[in-house]
Formats: sequence, C-alpha cells, structure tokens
Amino acid sequence: MLKASICTIGDELLIGQVIDTNSASISRAIGAIGAKVTAMVSIPDDGARIISDLKAQLAVNDIVITTGGLGPTKDDITKQALATLSGTDQYYMHDGQLEIVHAILKSRGLDVLDINRQQAMVPKTCEVILNKRGTAPIMVFRGLGSGNSTLYAMPGVPFETEAALPDVVADIVAHYPTDNILHRNIMTYGMAESALAKKISDWEDSLPEEVHLAYLPDPLKGVRLRLSIYSGSLDNEKQIIDNKIKELSDILGDTIYSYEDDTLEGAIGKILKEKGLTLSVAESCTGGEIAHLITTVPGSSAYFLGSVTSYAVKIKEQVLGVPAETIEKYGVVSSQTVEAMADGVRKLTGSDYAVATTGFAGPGGGDEREPEGTVWVGIATPKGVFSQRYNYRNDRRRNIQRFAASALFTLLKRLRSEVLYV
Amino acid sequence: MLKASICTIGDELLIGQVIDTNSASISRAIGAIGAKVTAMVSIPDDGARIISDLKAQLAVNDIVITTGGLGPTKDDITKQALATLSGTDQYYMHDGQLEIVHAILKSRGLDVLDINRQQAMVPKTCEVILNKRGTAPIMVFRGLGSGNSTLYAMPGVPFETEAALPDVVADIVAHYPTDNILHRNIMTYGMAESALAKKISDWEDSLPEEVHLAYLPDPLKGVRLRLSIYSGSLDNEKQIIDNKIKELSDILGDTIYSYEDDTLEGAIGKILKEKGLTLSVAESCTGGEIAHLITTVPGSSAYFLGSVTSYAVKIKEQVLGVPAETIEKYGVVSSQTVEAMADGVRKLTGSDYAVATTGFAGPGGGDEREPEGTVWVGIATPKGVFSQRYNYRNDRRRNIQRFAASALFTLLKRLRSEVLYV
Repeated sequence: MLKASICTIGDELLIGQVIDTNSASISRAIGAIGAKVTAMVSIPDDGARIISDLKAQLAVNDIVITTGGLGPTKDDITKQALATLSGTDQYYMHDGQLEIVHAILKSRGLDVLDINRQQAMVPKTCEVILNKRGTAPIMVFRGLGSGNSTLYAMPGVPFETEAALPDVVADIVAHYPTDNILHRNIMTYGMAESALAKKISDWEDSLPEEVHLAYLPDPLKGVRLRLSIYSGSLDNEKQIIDNKIKELSDILGDTIYSYEDDTLEGAIGKILKEKGLTLSVAESCTGGEIAHLITTVPGSSAYFLGSVTSYAVKIKEQVLGVPAETIEKYGVVSSQTVEAMADGVRKLTGSDYAVATTGFAGPGGGDEREPEGTVWVGIATPKGVFSQRYNYRNDRRRNIQRFAASALFTLLKRLRSEVLYV
Repeated sequence: MLKASICTIGDELLIGQVIDTNSASISRAIGAIGAKVTAMVSIPDDGARIISDLKAQLAVNDIVITTGGLGPTKDDITKQALATLSGTDQYYMHDGQLEIVHAILKSRGLDVLDINRQQAMVPKTCEVILNKRGTAPIMVFRGLGSGNSTLYAMPGVPFETEAALPDVVADIVAHYPTDNILHRNIMTYGMAESALAKKISDWEDSLPEEVHLAYLPDPLKGVRLRLSIYSGSLDNEKQIIDNKIKELSDILGDTIYSYEDDTLEGAIGKILKEKGLTLSVAESCTGGEIAHLITTVPGSSAYFLGSVTSYAVKIKEQVLGVPAETIEKYGVVSSQTVEAMADGVRKLTGSDYAVATTGFAGPGGGDEREPEGTVWVGIATPKGVFSQRYNYRNDRRRNIQRFAASALFTLLKRLRSEVLYV
C-alpha cells in the first residue's frame, strides 16, 4: 500500500483566511489508485518549517504532495525551500512552462515581466509537469526520504491543482506499483447515512473481502456509495461488482437515482434532454436555489425555460395565479398552495414539467399549521399535479439546501415514473 | 504570543470525503484574541497516532484544539485516546451535558439509549464546556505538554463547533494572558486584491507599526480588509484606527460598501429595510443565484418580493415583457435587453427597485456581439433604468458567482446614490 502525505503551504491557511479544499481533492484522486493518506498538514510560509516538516513527512511516506507557496511574490518561498531540501541552489528555465506563461499573460492583455518569467525557473533537481491553467509548473523531486520517496509540488489555486491532478496521478502510476482498481458509484437520496448503513448491512457483509464500500454524504447530492476493488484481474471483478450492484438495486429501489457520480439536477437534465421535455420552477422559501442548481448544469438551456421566485404572497397570486382563497384557507405553506404554484408556473411558461416549493426555512416563521423547517414540494406534469411534505431541523442555509434537494428528488422520482418506467 | 495548534481527527478527512472547515473557523476565532496558529494537522481515527501526534503538538504549543472523533460509534476513539494521554482510565458523568442529551433526543422523538448517555461521560482529568447543539461535550484538559498547555477537544460537526467556539475562546482568555485586541473590517468590492494593494500601498506604509492589515478575498463578498491592533490601551488606538479608516475611505470611495463584516446582499437588505423599499429580480445566466443570495439574509421577506428567471427567450418576452424586436435588434445579451428585463420585473411585481442580468456564463455560448464571460446588469429604479457591462474569464460556476456579485454591487451603488447620498 502506497503511503502518502498532503502538505498545504501558506499563512492564509493558518490564519483561517482560506478553507483548504485541495487536500480533499488530492486525497480523492490518489485514493482512487489505492494510495493511503496518512497525514494532512498545513505549514506556514516559513522556509525552515517547510524544510523540517516536509523531511518528517518524507521519512515515513512514499509520496508527499505539497500545494501553495509557488506564486511570484516575496511571500512565496516553497520553491527555494524545495531547492535547499533537494540539495541544490541551481535553477533552469523550463521552456514548455515559459510558453504557457507567455500565452496566459497574452490572453489577459499583459506584458511578460521578469517576475513572470521567473515562474518557469525551477531547481535543477526536479522534473516538471506542466501547469496548463497557471504560471507555476508542478515540480517533481524524486529519490527523497530514505531514497524512494517522491515529492510533488503543486500550485495552491484549486482551479490549477484540479486540472493538474490527472497528470500527477499518471506519474505516480508510472513510477510506483499500484493496484488494479475498479470504482463504481451509486447515488442515493432520501435516506440518512446511518439508516442506509442499517438497511444494507447484510448486503455489505456479503461483499467479497476485496470489495471496499465507502459512504460519501453530501447535503445537495445525498449519499454516494462507492464500491472499490483494489486488486486482481478486472474482468472477473467487474462481474462480481455488477452482480452486487444489481442486488443493491433490489434492496434500495428508487432511493438510487444514478449509477454514476452525478447530481440530482444532472440526472434530471439527462432525462429531460433525452425525452425532449422542458421544465420550469416556482420557488418561495428556496429563493432561487433550485433554479440556480438546475442552471449550473452546462446545456441546461435546452430544457430549462425559467422560474418565478414568489417571495411575496401577491406574486404568488398575480404572477403564478394561486387563488387568494387557497392561501387564506390552507395557508401559504400547504399542499394546496404548492400545487397551485407548480400548476401556475407550468401554465405561465408552457413547460412540460414544473416543480414548486413553499416552506419555512427559519429562523422562526412557522404558522399554526406547519412548524419551521417544513417544506411542501409540488410537481405539475402532463398527467396531473402532486405534492409531498418534508421537515428538517437545521439552520436557515442548510434548510434551504435540503429543501432544494428534496424538491429535485421529488421531481426526479416523478419524471422517472412517468417517462422512464412506461 | 500565545501559540496554538489545530488538530482535526477522522478518517473521513484523510480520504477526502469531507472538506475541513473547522480549522479555518477555529483559527479565525482564536486569531481574534491574538493567538498564532503554528500548525494544522489532520489525524486518522487511530489511537496511537492520536496520542503521539497530540503529544508532539502539545510540546510546542500553549493551546491544542482538536475536533472530531467524539461520536457514539466504535470508530470514534478520541475520548479514549485523550483519557490515556492525560493519564487516567476513570470517567465521570457530566450532569449538565446529560440534560442536553435528553433534551436533544426528546426533540427528535427518540428514546435515550445507553449509547447516548455514554456521550456525557468524560475522563476524570477533564473539565467540561457544554455543547448546546450536540450530545458530545467540549472537554478541557489542563496542565499538559511541559505543564502549561491546554487541550480543548471539540466535536467534528461544524454546526456544533461554531456554536461552542465563543465559550472556548472565553476559557482561553480566562486562563492565559492575551493581548488587548481591536479589529475593524472594511468590505470592498470591484477591485482585485493585487490592484487594491497597489492603490493603498502608501496608506498601508503609513500605518503605525502596531496596526496589522489583512486582505481577505471572497468571490461573493469582494475583498475584506481587516485592521487589527494587538496591544496597548484601546481608547488611544480606537482613535488612531478611526483616523486611518477615514483616510482609506477617501482613497477607495464607493469601492467600500460596508464598515463591518457584511455581504453585498446584507448591505442591500439594510438599506431597503431602513427605507421601507422593496426589490425584485430578473435573472437569466445567473439562473436564480441572485435571488438565492438575497433570500439567505434572515428577514429578507420584508423587502424581497420575488424574481423571474427567464432562461428561455420566450419567458423574457411573455413574462417580463421584453419586446421581441429588442432581442432581435440588440441581442439577448445587451444593454437594451437587460434594461427591459429590469423594467419588466419591476412592473410585474410592483417593486421599488429591480435588478436584472443577462450574459454568457459558458462553457461556450458567446454570440457575434459579446464573448463568453460577459454579463449585462440592469437596474430599474423610481428614477430610471440603467445598465452596466462586466466580463470575467472563469469556469461556469465561478462566472455565475461573479455575475451575481457584480449585479448586487451595481444595485448597491445605485441604491446608495439614490437613497443614502441625497
């Protein structure tokens, strides 16, 4: 088992200015080739600390991946510390990265200054993996630690690090024995991690020893189940894992919404696109979050017509055509109101499908009928109008996320039953 | 200077399943009392590793704060490791926390099992700070390291950790000499960090030595400038810092949108609420993000009437009343179209103010008039209709964020000029 350490470098991390997202994305990427992350460490911009902390990590790991401290300003001292650590004070210009530096500055309409060219200069002791999205290349130092450890120095900007990760992973695979690995994702929604674990515990116990199961929960996506096989001949195991997924599908039913790493809005988009159907949204308490999620999917303009956020009651009445008597009789957070909203936005936009929400995200704000944390979801389709109630107990932001995800899941289930399973 | 280390515990961190947000929020909280964070470390759920890593941190820090590993399941072994580390195998029941355990389970309609009561049992060697939002108390172990170090063990759930942080900070202040500290925040929008730094470099150089300036950038909030004074008599320094902020205000003008830690949507909300004005939104490329941001502000229903996301051209025409000729003649991403959208939603909802966006968030999607990354922002007010163009070069998600923040900033500037500076 390959042992790895992830070291993020920069004062901005230690003072809490920036939340470190690089460590998690690097860990997921190298975890996929079976590397085990033994430690994550954040180190200040201090040359002596960088050298001593990295030496300590190199002594007990095969791979050390650093991010940050490679910028052009005087705060950024990682490169110099790595030169010292690897026993050189000599640098060379990397022509491939220099070309990228020129291209990036040109695209921004800026001149190339010495300080920019400097970015493509690297210690003699390292090889380079190109950084296609930024000016600082990825530096690869081999033969460190007790002689077999490798250090990869990546940029701190997540946008750049994520783009370079596949090349770093390929380099690790090329230089270290890694396991044959097969991953399969199953996306579920609507069951908490603990309830899900209980429901599938017999199935989990029946998994062959070489199959590993991970639970990856996300408030907007639900719980992703990841099945991994880390060794053996893949043909054989593909069969095993396919059979196991079929069993799981029978146990979980429509709690499963995708068999690839997807989102609820992504899964909805695929069905709508394939069937040539259109969608509109009417929101209240979710305040635009559902429309926002739908439109983060590239190509969503093919099926998403638009949405109305009716925060004020009079917008529900005047724009969406919800009868004033409905709101008065049943309350603004009710099955009847949300169905009228869904029906109203469907008629207003002429869409095939519509989803609506009305609820109390808090803090406070429940009425005599429904407490804070309640959302009613309405769905209008060519076959009729439907609604469902959910209740959550979180703070305002988290409630809004849960409400939006519940609305998307309710829509997805309805879509599947009406257009897929027919 | 108080030295501190933040240690997050849990396999879920090391496999990249969870992004650590606790370290940053803890660092900001203790940074505010002048503590310096020397290291952030993530440690797996492994008793021996927890003990050895924490001992190493305690040897060189006054304060060590851990999060995680305090749950009721068998994976959670932090409490046991801390008992060992502090030299005990004896536990006691903390009655105050036990009451909270009962209250929390009751509110969820669940029975209190032994496994739940267990949560309120803590090692004899620790004091307790109550966890009001969760079942596992904060444990305080004093006299560690070389005799003067304190370890605070906090829960891993950010919602719980954030709520308990003020009590932990108060405990640190009660037990260690901390500096007199004064922080002041200045929120800016519309200038990149580097451009801002250049513009205020003379002013920055003129700051007295005891005044520290930090740049805290955020895609949705702009750059927050934080001025801190860590020592001396506060009265005196309040005067110094107030004078310096006045100078800064003259240099930056309406780039500054708040003198407290705020958001664009928060600053907008304050003005609207104070003046009794209402707001509506028409979105296209931002797909609901602006309405979503506005409604994350508690109490926004006092001024936000609603929004229309007109993704399809026909919704722009039929719901917002944008003339088909305008779109045909000037393009869907244009000054004329966005002004018609803003005007249309203002009339539709009867709001005092309206903000609208139309643009190309990418990937792809520019037309012969405007490239990908362009957004037109329109503002309709009692005094007229206005528009402004912005261009960004990011990926889709980041472009949508930038577009939304630019729209909010444009609205805020207009609001201030029309209702504040009169």
